[in-house]
Amino acid sequence: MTAKAKTRLYVEVPLSQEGIVELSKDKAHFLKNVLRLSPGDSVAFFNGADGEWFGRLDVLSKNTATAVLDHQSRPQSPMPDVWLVFAPIKRARIDFVAEKATELGVAQIRPVITRRTVMARVNTGRLEANALEASEQCERLDVPQVYEPEQLNKVLDNWPEGRRILWCDEGASGGPIAQALANLDEQAKSDPWAILIGPEGGFDEVERNRLIEFPDALAVTLGPRLLRADTAAAAALAIWQAWVGDWDLTPT
Amino acid sequence: MTAKAKTRLYVEVPLSQEGIVELSKDKAHFLKNVLRLSPGDSVAFFNGADGEWFGRLDVLSKNTATAVLDHQSRPQSPMPDVWLVFAPIKRARIDFVAEKATELGVAQIRPVITRRTVMARVNTGRLEANALEASEQCERLDVPQVYEPEQLNKVLDNWPEGRRILWCDEGASGGPIAQALANLDEQAKSDPWAILIGPEGGFDEVERNRLIEFPDALAVTLGPRLLRADTAAAAALAIWQAWVGDWDLTPT
Repeated sequence: MTAKAKTRLYVEVPLSQEGIVELSKDKAHFLKNVLRLSPGDSVAFFNGADGEWFGRLDVLSKNTATAVLDHQSRPQSPMPDVWLVFAPIKRARIDFVAEKATELGVAQIRPVITRRTVMARVNTGRLEANALEASEQCERLDVPQVYEPEQLNKVLDNWPEGRRILWCDEGASGGPIAQALANLDEQAKSDPWAILIGPEGGFDEVERNRLIEFPDALAVTLGPRLLRADTAAAAALAIWQAWVGDWDLTPT
Repeated sequence: MTAKAKTRLYVEVPLSQEGIVELSKDKAHFLKNVLRLSPGDSVAFFNGADGEWFGRLDVLSKNTATAVLDHQSRPQSPMPDVWLVFAPIKRARIDFVAEKATELGVAQIRPVITRRTVMARVNTGRLEANALEASEQCERLDVPQVYEPEQLNKVLDNWPEGRRILWCDEGASGGPIAQALANLDEQAKSDPWAILIGPEGGFDEVERNRLIEFPDALAVTLGPRLLRADTAAAAALAIWQAWVGDWDLTPT
């Protein structure tokens, strides 16, 4: 009962004592032929709402798999409320962003089209698949929501009141990220946040001026070297988690 | 004179006023056929010692290229003295580690073989190529040194006195990284450092016990989720730079 299941699966069904989970053909194939599991083997499930549940595989054939839930191994726990709002980048790097942002505990992944964005098309299905796989790997109890790309201006027009923006600004309108976060008061730390990462080449002047005026946007710098957008996203999220988010908690 | 060269190249020759830089056949091909530059175009050079110099392409043929140095655009500046000591991981992820660690300002990249390391062979030439390309991209004035893999025990046997270790310990023997770094005194902040990242699955008990006893090893945790080794490396380096390294400096 205490041995740890190595396999974690995200499912979109309720999880409860003695509940039965039916898995898709794809997952049946994965469990049987890739992981080479057998009936009776233990698998963990989560659905973003009911915590993590251990179950035992019951039926396991080429086309179908079911598991019977045994016990809840972890209750659902709140996640930090932080979005990643970023200008999309080319394929391998955007996959990376989805994976790393998920491990680093982001709640929403929101691509935004800026004036200098080169990649206007984003395969959000692929981003979702990366986020889902990373969630299964990193012991999350939920999967971050992936949005379709939107125009930056539209996102800012509809910006929710009270959500702060950590704006990673190559233009150096702000101060070093460590000082900026160290100076936050308790109210600011408990507010919802978003990390904002511009395109390669940065936001243009019109966008910068809007952000400089924007309520609750905190401009920060990420050191003297030029970071790629994917590096900046991972760095800023890690630093935010360490000082504002939930990295005061120990590993599960 | 003030327009910024878009192309930066690392070279292994001295750089000085009116010096001539001869480039390899590979670089001639890259400049001529990939970047489509012409004689007279501006290129920036750095060599890890003489700062950054702007020069103009003189000869540019299929087999050879030369540039005449015009002026020094940036003096050489010191880099934070931080190593990344990590258990090697599979190919795409180790490429990522070399690139991200370089952008995040690491001085040395040192793969170590641990008891649970799966990948004992490392293509260090490939790591060097990734580190070099990232250095050119991110405006560094040097290229981090890449070492051949060594046994962790041997690395610790020869550990230089006074170099501190930030040990990212999944086993949670330490406290949260933010608190640990916030509590460092000025002496500790000015000492040389190394970030230590274990293999997937963590260090084994023998290794952990040695690290727990090791002088100047500071064990820290990176939050409640399980990070992949490459994510942990990037996160820890970014956080170290923000609080101990040179991220109080603004972008160049």
